[in-house]
Parts: sequence; C-alpha cells; structure tokens
Amino acid sequence: MTQLINKQFRLAARPIGRPKKTDWEYREDAVPNLQDGELLVQAKFISLDPAMRGWMNDARSYIAPVEIGAVMRAGAVGKVIASRHTKFSEGMYVVGSLGVQSHAVSDGAGLMAVDPKLAPLSLYLGALGMPGMTAYFGLLDVGQPKEGETVVVSGAAGAVGSVVGQIARIKGCKVVGIAGGPEKCNMLTETLRFDAAIDYKSDDLRKSLKAACPNGIDVYFDNVGGDILDTVLTRINRSARIPICGAISQYNNTTPIKGPSNYLSLLINRARMEGFIVFDYAGRYKTAMQEIAGWIASGELTVKEHIVSGIETFPETLLMLFDGGNTGKLMIQVD
Amino acid sequence: MTQLINKQFRLAARPIGRPKKTDWEYREDAVPNLQDGELLVQAKFISLDPAMRGWMNDARSYIAPVEIGAVMRAGAVGKVIASRHTKFSEGMYVVGSLGVQSHAVSDGAGLMAVDPKLAPLSLYLGALGMPGMTAYFGLLDVGQPKEGETVVVSGAAGAVGSVVGQIARIKGCKVVGIAGGPEKCNMLTETLRFDAAIDYKSDDLRKSLKAACPNGIDVYFDNVGGDILDTVLTRINRSARIPICGAISQYNNTTPIKGPSNYLSLLINRARMEGFIVFDYAGRYKTAMQEIAGWIASGELTVKEHIVSGIETFPETLLMLFDGGNTGKLMIQVD
Repeated sequence: MTQLINKQFRLAARPIGRPKKTDWEYREDAVPNLQDGELLVQAKFISLDPAMRGWMNDARSYIAPVEIGAVMRAGAVGKVIASRHTKFSEGMYVVGSLGVQSHAVSDGAGLMAVDPKLAPLSLYLGALGMPGMTAYFGLLDVGQPKEGETVVVSGAAGAVGSVVGQIARIKGCKVVGIAGGPEKCNMLTETLRFDAAIDYKSDDLRKSLKAACPNGIDVYFDNVGGDILDTVLTRINRSARIPICGAISQYNNTTPIKGPSNYLSLLINRARMEGFIVFDYAGRYKTAMQEIAGWIASGELTVKEHIVSGIETFPETLLMLFDGGNTGKLMIQVD
Repeated sequence: MTQLINKQFRLAARPIGRPKKTDWEYREDAVPNLQDGELLVQAKFISLDPAMRGWMNDARSYIAPVEIGAVMRAGAVGKVIASRHTKFSEGMYVVGSLGVQSHAVSDGAGLMAVDPKLAPLSLYLGALGMPGMTAYFGLLDVGQPKEGETVVVSGAAGAVGSVVGQIARIKGCKVVGIAGGPEKCNMLTETLRFDAAIDYKSDDLRKSLKAACPNGIDVYFDNVGGDILDTVLTRINRSARIPICGAISQYNNTTPIKGPSNYLSLLINRARMEGFIVFDYAGRYKTAMQEIAGWIASGELTVKEHIVSGIETFPETLLMLFDGGNTGKLMIQVD
C-alpha cells in the first residue's frame, strides 16, 4: 500500500466578517498508522453548512469553537478503508463529523454506519442527514404546524429550507418560501410544489407576504434573521410559532447583529420565538430518517443537491452559502 | 340631587414620543341622565399602567387605539351611585375599564362587582387586578418556573414586577429583581424578600447578573425591553423561558424600537421568548385572585402601592411610569 496523503483544511485565523482565503491553511499530510480502536475513512462528500461560520468564532455556543490550527469541523460521508475498530470494518460506509479532509482517522465516536444501497451517499449529508433532521424537528417539534395553517420559510431553496417547506406541504399546510432570485423561486413552486415563492431580492417583501399569506402567518421557520425576520414579524397571526434555526444574513457581520425591531409583535400576537439545536433530537433521528426516506421514495419529497468537485475548492465553495450561490444542499465531492 | 360634574381627560392628539400636556384635553361636563340598562360609577381609584401608552398610538394591536377626542381608557374602581341596570345596584362597588374620569356612565359590559370588605378597593387595580393577573399568568403559564430555578424580573419594583418576584419566591425559585435606584432595590430585598436586586442605573448589569445568578437564568420576565433584555439574553440557561410582558424603555421612542441584538442566544440555548396578553386568561381570573388573596392574607405576598391624589394630576402622574417615579402600583385617588 502506497503512503496515503490526507488533503485537509485547517483553521488558520478567526475570520473577521467574511472568511478569507488566509483564514485557512491547506495541508497535505501523510495519513498516520492506525492505533487499536481507530479507523480510517476516505471521505466521499463533505458537507458545507451555515453553522460552520459560528464554529469559527471564539464565543460561547452550543458547541466548542474549532481551535486555531485544527482541521475545520464538518460533516462528511465516506468509506472505511482501514480499521482496527471492533464496530466498523473495512468496506463499510459511515457518516459523522469527519472534518474538511480527504482522509479522517476516527475513534468511531459519533460515527454512524450507512447503507449506500438504501440511498445515495450524499443524501446522508442532506435530507437524511443534519439538514433533514434540522428541518424535521425544527418544523414539527418547535413549529408545530397544523393542517391548513400557513407556513413561511426563509432560505427556502437551501438544504434545510427546501425540506421544511416540503414537510409542511405534506402535513397539509399552505407553504410560502422566501429565496433570492427568480430561478430559486421557480424551483420552489415548480419542482418542490410550494404554494408561493417570494424573491426577497426583487419583490417588496411586505406586499408579497400580504398577497401570498392572506390568512396571515402561523409558523415562520427562520434561517436568515435580519430584515426578513423583521418584516415577517409584522404579518404573524395570534399564537404564531417562530422556530429560530439560524440567521445567515448576520453571520459575517462585523457590526453587532441586527435584533428584530418588531419583536413586540410577539406580545400583541401571543406568539413565540424559539431556538433549537438539532443534536438534542439525536434519539429520534432514526424515526425521522425513515419517515423522510419514505417521502422521498413516494415522490412526495424532492431532494435538491448542489455538489462541487474537489476539496481544494473549499474556501470559495463555503462562501456560496453566504452569497446565495447554492440551490439545495451544498457539498464537496472529494476526488 | 345637584347636577354632578364629570371631570375627565380626553385624548387630544397622538403623542410623538413622550406624552405632552397638550396631548390631553381636560373637561368638566355635566353627567348625563341614565338610560335603561345604564349605571353611574363614581371613581375612587384610577389605574395608571404602561400599556396606556400603546393605546394612544394609531397602530394595529391587541386592542383598538383610543380615538382622538375620546375619554382616555383606564381601569378604575368605584361606587355605583345610580343605576337603571338589572345587575348592578346603587351602593355596589365595581371595577372595570371606566376611563380617566370621575364619573363613568356604563352599560355594565366588562364590569365586575367587588367587595370592599374582602380587600381594600385599591387592591382590585393592583395585586387583585390586571397587574396581579398579568404577573400570575405571565409567570406561571408562560414562564413555567420550577422550584429551585432562577427567575429574573425587570421593572421589579412596579405593579407587575413586584408581584412576579414574590410569586416566584413563593414557588421556591431564586428571585433577582432589576430596578432603578437604591431605594427600590432595598425595598425588593428587605420588604418583598427577593434574593437579590440589581440597580440598573448604577450597577454594571452584566457583572451584577453574573454575581446574582451563579447558576444562570431560567426565567426572565421582561417588562422593559431595550438594553436590559439584551444583557439578560447573554446569561440565560438552556431551555430558558422569556415571557414578554412589555418594553417600557421603548414606548416613548421616536426612533424604531431597539430589537434584541442577542436574540440568537435563544438558538444556542434552545430558549424561547413568548408574548402574552392578560385578557386571554379572563376565564381563570377568579382562581388567580383567590390564590393571590390567600398569599396576601398569610403575609407571603406584600402589596406595594403608589397613590397620587387628584384626577387633575393625570398628565404628570402618568409620566412617573416612564421616569421610574413610582414604587408599586401607580394609581390616582379621585376626590
């Protein structure tokens, strides 16, 4: 066996605002020999997620920041190509937090075996992975949509938003997606069968929301924060629920985050805004995965993926998330 | 019977920012003769509440704005001095939305008979009235404090806050009040038996919260909004609940309301911020009143009142709410 090389991106500096190329260190290191209890995974797909921006900051959060000099944290799916681990054997496929690298040595903690015959590998980073779980539990547990209610989702063409809207449709809700640009909006109504889509880049959001949601908004699944959250707050119904999934419009701010000026709409409308972290639902992932897989199989849920080739593209590819460059789940195909 | 004169304040203009004297019209009108189904109430105490500022704005809310030219809306308690109503007879005492006036003609809608032998009349505007109900349902239903948890309340020396903190203490919580000035803070810890009080005017709020809440904050009952809400958000625990009762720091703004920049703390901490309106709990007022009356009788709950004499003082007395001038329930004694 020739010496394997691990292509990897390490965090070189904490970004101020938008992550720059110099915030990363690209390295090619020899893959070390395995110790007892370790396995080696060759990554096939690496997941790029908005949450990664938060992990780069040195701030108290739901998870420790990535240390300077460490391989950047990322979800990935790959093949076990060597193993001295009792649970994972060579030839198996696994998904987990394997980092932005082509070859990951792991002690197996947090890894889950997946079956590439049941679903394409990339799905385990998308609709059957963290974004799918985030959509499922954030919408159903936190948002608690009821049949006939109006659900609005921002970042609607993204990995999470595209699944949120479709689950809401499956549950009998009226679904309105907010996304940037006519192509994404067409995709939402044509391919994903949302009831309406609003292009926040060109439409008057307030007027469009009024037109698309004549009965008001019962659930707003927020991926973006900022002005969109503030505008939606003016249109919510009594007892509305606002799951806070993220605030991608604010992640690269160099000034303080824009808080929602219209938050007193929560008071008037007896509404609530509630944060959640998908990891809390780990005990129920299996059930959610089965249900989502069933919807995919029946054609009720359409998966959108945006796959970029080559781990070397990581610094630029990551920025697509903040520039609205991707439609559906963004990931890097390794090799 | 000599002709009775009704002293009254009518809304003359919608205030911009802080209500000015010229936003009011003071009038003395003859009390009209009663029609069938009407009663005449001589007000004893008129309630002054932060919510009144919102009612003066021409904005969509949970209740219609007060019309220009109409008697200002206010809760009041008084004596029935004439009646052609089947349910309310002369000599009874009633509480309800009777307005800022000495003599109110009413059709009985929304009026409740009260017994001045069971409790001093003024209590029906405070701990046994809307502020008490707001504290009770906002804390217990929305905040859901559990024994041993830490509850923080702002506007803690006010009509609502002073009751919130005491109910939290009765329920076995650690209670920290935020108020303005050393006198109010002393009152909170000495008279109302809060565990700690923070003077937001002179203390470093962030440091004081850290010191007073070593185990973090589980429930934050917010009466004030603004910078205090933002600072508290940095100290909340996982699954914290934030009942939004009001935002008195923002009510006289002439610029947009300051939204909470730190609202993403809700996400990290899987916490929620939830608005409520006391009127929704009307069906349970009786139970709450009985429980609060019991706590007052047993000495577990101490009532603080701030009574100003003379309806003529209304425009200036109202401003005490925004200037932190009152300790406990602010009201005007008529006569």
